[in-house]
Amino acid sequence: MEEIILAVDLGGTNVRIATVNLGGKILDKLSFLTEVSRGRERVMKDILSRIQGFLRGFPGEEFEVIGGGFGIPGAIALDQGVVTQSPNLPVLDGFNIRSWLQGRLRMPIFVENDANAFSLGEGWMGAARGVKEFCCLTLGTGVGGGIVLNGDIWHGTEGKAGEIGHMVIDVDGPPCQCGSRGCLEVFASGSAIRRMAIEAIEGDEKTDLVERCGGEIKKITAKTVYESARGGDRLSRGIFQRVGIYLGVGLANLVNLLNVELMVIGGRVSEAWDLFINPLREELEKRTVGSMGKGVRVERARCGDDAGILGAAYLVKKEFEKHKRRR
Amino acid sequence: MEEIILAVDLGGTNVRIATVNLGGKILDKLSFLTEVSRGRERVMKDILSRIQGFLRGFPGEEFEVIGGGFGIPGAIALDQGVVTQSPNLPVLDGFNIRSWLQGRLRMPIFVENDANAFSLGEGWMGAARGVKEFCCLTLGTGVGGGIVLNGDIWHGTEGKAGEIGHMVIDVDGPPCQCGSRGCLEVFASGSAIRRMAIEAIEGDEKTDLVERCGGEIKKITAKTVYESARGGDRLSRGIFQRVGIYLGVGLANLVNLLNVELMVIGGRVSEAWDLFINPLREELEKRTVGSMGKGVRVERARCGDDAGILGAAYLVKKEFEKHKRRR
Repeated sequence: MEEIILAVDLGGTNVRIATVNLGGKILDKLSFLTEVSRGRERVMKDILSRIQGFLRGFPGEEFEVIGGGFGIPGAIALDQGVVTQSPNLPVLDGFNIRSWLQGRLRMPIFVENDANAFSLGEGWMGAARGVKEFCCLTLGTGVGGGIVLNGDIWHGTEGKAGEIGHMVIDVDGPPCQCGSRGCLEVFASGSAIRRMAIEAIEGDEKTDLVERCGGEIKKITAKTVYESARGGDRLSRGIFQRVGIYLGVGLANLVNLLNVELMVIGGRVSEAWDLFINPLREELEKRTVGSMGKGVRVERARCGDDAGILGAAYLVKKEFEKHKRRR
Repeated sequence: MEEIILAVDLGGTNVRIATVNLGGKILDKLSFLTEVSRGRERVMKDILSRIQGFLRGFPGEEFEVIGGGFGIPGAIALDQGVVTQSPNLPVLDGFNIRSWLQGRLRMPIFVENDANAFSLGEGWMGAARGVKEFCCLTLGTGVGGGIVLNGDIWHGTEGKAGEIGHMVIDVDGPPCQCGSRGCLEVFASGSAIRRMAIEAIEGDEKTDLVERCGGEIKKITAKTVYESARGGDRLSRGIFQRVGIYLGVGLANLVNLLNVELMVIGGRVSEAWDLFINPLREELEKRTVGSMGKGVRVERARCGDDAGILGAAYLVKKEFEKHKRRR
């Protein structure tokens, strides 16, 4: 009987469920939309019934589910399994998701912040395989982060560490939704790309972006800017170069503080890799103390949308093997 | 026979030698000037003979020196004990100071970067006593830093971590001697205070600073600005408030990344504590994600000039006790 893991990546818009074996292979996968507007009870019951249906569809005689790992968008009090704050899934605020799931799924449940799960996934099966000290950045609508030290997520005193996207790199910079200003997120996220494009157009620079959005500047998205850059538009290419420069500064800060050997960058925006990686590397070298910038590798995440699932599965695998060693 | 430790704080201008007991009490202390211009051999022999003389003067029958701990201004390859780079004591670049000292002093020698030693000293006997996760900043001519995680210095892959002073907080800010721009050091060090004062005077603001330096603006030092602020000068007080704001941003970055529970601030500039602590705390709360800013304490270093010596001694104490447990 093969031992398998239930892995769930709970997002603000999507939920992904998968079964993963101990070798990191995803066996089966299901994805569905989260309807967060309907209150906690409904959301959780919906997720639960999807999981139960998903597991029932799995050929049970050959497999044993040894536990469930959940990646959750928000801060988690790890000792209790309570979601302390989830800006993208506020129905979960203050909810003891671990004990709720454990009671109903009747298996050991492990929860982790989604960006941390992403980092663990890349560490287990992706770009950071075999690396014990690295940082992970996910460039999406916002900028998520995970810090791995000594082969494990660095959680900090209250479990809230790793807010790489809210590191200030421009003290008087544009306001961030977190309440601060000039955070890395306002320079390197999808929303930042959109904002920088709109600002540049209003500055009357020449671009084909206006045409691409049918003259309605408000309709511009990071994707429009990306396509326009791919088409050779100078303004759009310049925006990705700026993203690279700001990311280089942010990574340099991490290197100066933590002297890790690898930086992994994932998320939608990382699809523009070749448009920002050169200015990123250049800035990183310029901004690091001594030779530290030369010593650090910067790599693109390799697990794509599966990183979160793999990381959630890894939570279970790690505990399972710790237990096994003890026996 | 009491077991005692030889502790040395090797600075760019001063060397401090002390004997410390296992309880963290400094028994005897000697300080002398470093004359770095005379080459490595002369500098090291001078230090050695001072140490030997110092130890000979110590009543030997009642004490046993169990080892020597050295705080060194620069990056150190800890596995070998080689000084890889020392901007303030360049005669040591590439020098295996540990084996040199070990061969001559005939005792186990431990070396550590000086800012890290400072942090260990505060952790052992000062403001961070009993705290397992904290960051230390020393505000002097530059800004030094140490990061303590799980009760130990976080060294990073190459032993170069903890460059808190070179965290960029203003991407286009004033140039820093490290080659970057807008580092915390250019806003919160003694040199920064001097620069900000001169810039403000040139901006024609009213101040008694000009009088204090006898009309020669170039003669202004951080100390002049400090005294002028103490005397009530508005411009000078404003500079320390700015120092507080920038420090608040820097500390917020550390909290957002590492979620540590305590920040310790020492060094000469920290004597202006009451002039910068309120804006610092305010900015720190504004710039941190969720409630992390409220969870972190900010305290003034307590060991003064002895923090480096105590930290150097702690290196020996820690190894000694590890050994003792093993026997």
